[in-house]
Amino acid sequence: MHTISVCFSPEQFEYYRHEGSNAVAIDILRATTSICTAFMNGAKEVIPISTVEELKTYAGGEYIIAAERDGVKLDFADVGNSPHYFTAELVAGRTIAYSTTNGTRTINLAAQCHTATIGSFINISALCRYLEAADRDVFLLCAGWKGRFNLEDSVFAGAVAEKLIDTGKFSTICDGAIAAMDLWSLAKSDLKTYMKKAAQNERLRKINAADAIPFCLERDLTDVVPIYRNGRLVV
Amino acid sequence: MHTISVCFSPEQFEYYRHEGSNAVAIDILRATTSICTAFMNGAKEVIPISTVEELKTYAGGEYIIAAERDGVKLDFADVGNSPHYFTAELVAGRTIAYSTTNGTRTINLAAQCHTATIGSFINISALCRYLEAADRDVFLLCAGWKGRFNLEDSVFAGAVAEKLIDTGKFSTICDGAIAAMDLWSLAKSDLKTYMKKAAQNERLRKINAADAIPFCLERDLTDVVPIYRNGRLVV
Repeated sequence: MHTISVCFSPEQFEYYRHEGSNAVAIDILRATTSICTAFMNGAKEVIPISTVEELKTYAGGEYIIAAERDGVKLDFADVGNSPHYFTAELVAGRTIAYSTTNGTRTINLAAQCHTATIGSFINISALCRYLEAADRDVFLLCAGWKGRFNLEDSVFAGAVAEKLIDTGKFSTICDGAIAAMDLWSLAKSDLKTYMKKAAQNERLRKINAADAIPFCLERDLTDVVPIYRNGRLVV
Repeated sequence: MHTISVCFSPEQFEYYRHEGSNAVAIDILRATTSICTAFMNGAKEVIPISTVEELKTYAGGEYIIAAERDGVKLDFADVGNSPHYFTAELVAGRTIAYSTTNGTRTINLAAQCHTATIGSFINISALCRYLEAADRDVFLLCAGWKGRFNLEDSVFAGAVAEKLIDTGKFSTICDGAIAAMDLWSLAKSDLKTYMKKAAQNERLRKINAADAIPFCLERDLTDVVPIYRNGRLVV
């Protein structure tokens, strides 16, 4: 029997036990959904980059530069952080240098665990099959919003935790996992309506990016499970 | 209309806006319940002290020393952190120097807000009346457990948020508050059963302190609302 832990914010990462775990980086609105979309559409690699300064060193070359801060595309980036940017026409066979407000920091923290993967509703079943087969403890790391708790990442963590526990191979004694599953129990019958409560809705609406939300709540559009290896995400 | 925010861990304090707020320090199992018990039974003041070193400077004098780490009473303390220690016979008219694993740090952070109060189920209605009358934004700060999320403090925060919103004078756009209220909606019909899921149950059981839990989940045993003034809690 393996354990499941859920951490609601990168700022709490160090307080959780995650040695030897398979970590899942979660930023549903929108970074991890966009990354799964890029791989679904044939991207070769994604390089998660925490700082704008480092990202600038990738500009003007072979890389697609994807970057936002506070939801808005950075001026030197090729695209922002919405899934619809990552079409097959743009990304097939290419490497994306990626930096977002909350998501890339979360991915780089998850990379400190035994294995780091990328979770989103669009790859949730494939992710859970991977986690089940990997036969390790699971550490679900939510990106949150600027250090704060957010609803969409937490509910997704609850969905994953429930699926894993349903296999009979996982259990939890983590209050975060229990709360996440309880939130998921309230959300799952009508996820899109439930998620209207999330503050990120209003933030995305203000920057005219709310049209990405329904896509980010679709389930099982792809079987990709991006994995972190040597500083890059690959499938 | 005033706002309500819920922060699930002291480690996230700096990421929330709480200037001008009435803060509520929450450590249901057991520090804030014990502090309310002490005032219910006539204590004069409680001095929340973060470090063991500072607490030792209060020993051997007029103060009652109340202290635990990892649930266990420190050897130089008069009493530990369970409500049953704080009888009228012991505490009436006296000042208590208090230090616990998570609770006192939380209180001292809350003290950075406009006003800091102490919340527990045993004073919840009096607390909410105070917060309503105070006519300010409310910031609910959960102690959690060593940087991590915990269930009991979060559910309590949800109970307070619901009561305040029901007055018609408060609203929230904080995902933490929304999640806390959703957890409370699942817990409130049978709080004691719901709380059996919380990890703190097992921690307290292991140190033979679980008998404090039912008391800590009782509602409205007292009308005290401890308030932080000049480094001390008073009523």
